[in-house]
Amino acid sequence: MTQIKATHIVRHEGHVSRGERENLLAQQGVLLWLTGLPSSGKSTIAYTVEHALVSRNHLAYVLDGDNIRFGLNKNLGFSAEDRAENIRRIGEVGNLYVDGGFLTLASFVSPYREDRDGVRALMDEGDFVEIFIDTPVELCEARDPKGLYKKARAGEIPNFTGVSDPYEAPKNAEMVIKTADGTPEEAAAQIIAMLEHMGKIKSA
Amino acid sequence: MTQIKATHIVRHEGHVSRGERENLLAQQGVLLWLTGLPSSGKSTIAYTVEHALVSRNHLAYVLDGDNIRFGLNKNLGFSAEDRAENIRRIGEVGNLYVDGGFLTLASFVSPYREDRDGVRALMDEGDFVEIFIDTPVELCEARDPKGLYKKARAGEIPNFTGVSDPYEAPKNAEMVIKTADGTPEEAAAQIIAMLEHMGKIKSA
Repeated sequence: MTQIKATHIVRHEGHVSRGERENLLAQQGVLLWLTGLPSSGKSTIAYTVEHALVSRNHLAYVLDGDNIRFGLNKNLGFSAEDRAENIRRIGEVGNLYVDGGFLTLASFVSPYREDRDGVRALMDEGDFVEIFIDTPVELCEARDPKGLYKKARAGEIPNFTGVSDPYEAPKNAEMVIKTADGTPEEAAAQIIAMLEHMGKIKSA
Repeated sequence: MTQIKATHIVRHEGHVSRGERENLLAQQGVLLWLTGLPSSGKSTIAYTVEHALVSRNHLAYVLDGDNIRFGLNKNLGFSAEDRAENIRRIGEVGNLYVDGGFLTLASFVSPYREDRDGVRALMDEGDFVEIFIDTPVELCEARDPKGLYKKARAGEIPNFTGVSDPYEAPKNAEMVIKTADGTPEEAAAQIIAMLEHMGKIKSA
């Protein structure tokens, strides 16, 4: 058998606690849930927060279409049922990330209130923070960096939120960001100030 | 608008890279996939590794039935199809954890070779490490800490791997651990030595 070098190892019957990881990381896990119309600016804000946190030596991670829709949820479409399952799975992964001690950002249109509330319900108080990226549909459509609104208006994309599918705005979001009134950098600073205020990270 | 304190924030259009998080953590992400019969000792070994790594200030996380079957995969049963989807989702979550920079352990029976190979296929070379916990079924059944073999023999649990469902042993596992020949502490030490050898963590 292999020579045993790590002689300090002792047997454990259960998981390392979230608190032990949080102590190691000098931060507390949280799921920041950014919801809003397509092209409202969610991902730009999420990435800006992620980079700012990592530059402060915090561990942060963005869950978004890039790493979810082509992986875990590639077997889901855009029907109401599949959208619900999409959000449910993302919520569960977010919960795992929070248990891992991560400052987690989820950036998804997540148009239905019931689905978002379902994620909130599965998490502990203070672990789920809903951030409504409140950008008027006219402004989203004017931006339209991927040309999706244009395609949706032409009927090329069915079930497109804001055009042919509804968006249910949050009623009790912890934060509302009106991107028409400020830059993504300002939005990111607001979110980081909230994390400090909540004690999730120490003040800079 | 909120006073802007974090004036160093600049806008970013994409994700923080895995490498940036790994630098921050002084470790490299990996998914250690422990497979073996029920009661073969997978989870005890996984928890022992997790605790040992965290005591060395490394970020580690165990994915197992505790945090997967009651959450992300609570809508899956034990048919071959559902087992495949169960393992696929766990693989995708493991991949996300590796991207997050975690030393990730997955502890699941995962009886079908095709499903495990599917996880390997979705990950980059060197990120997936298959560890076969090779415990004879007689020994697993003699241990049977949860009384599952007894119930399975009594016909109370259908599709029970090792009794009424097959287990396909790995052919090319990176590591084989014969628990009949050693303790969980010895197995954990072997795994940690391998992580050092692979450069995933620095030698103690």
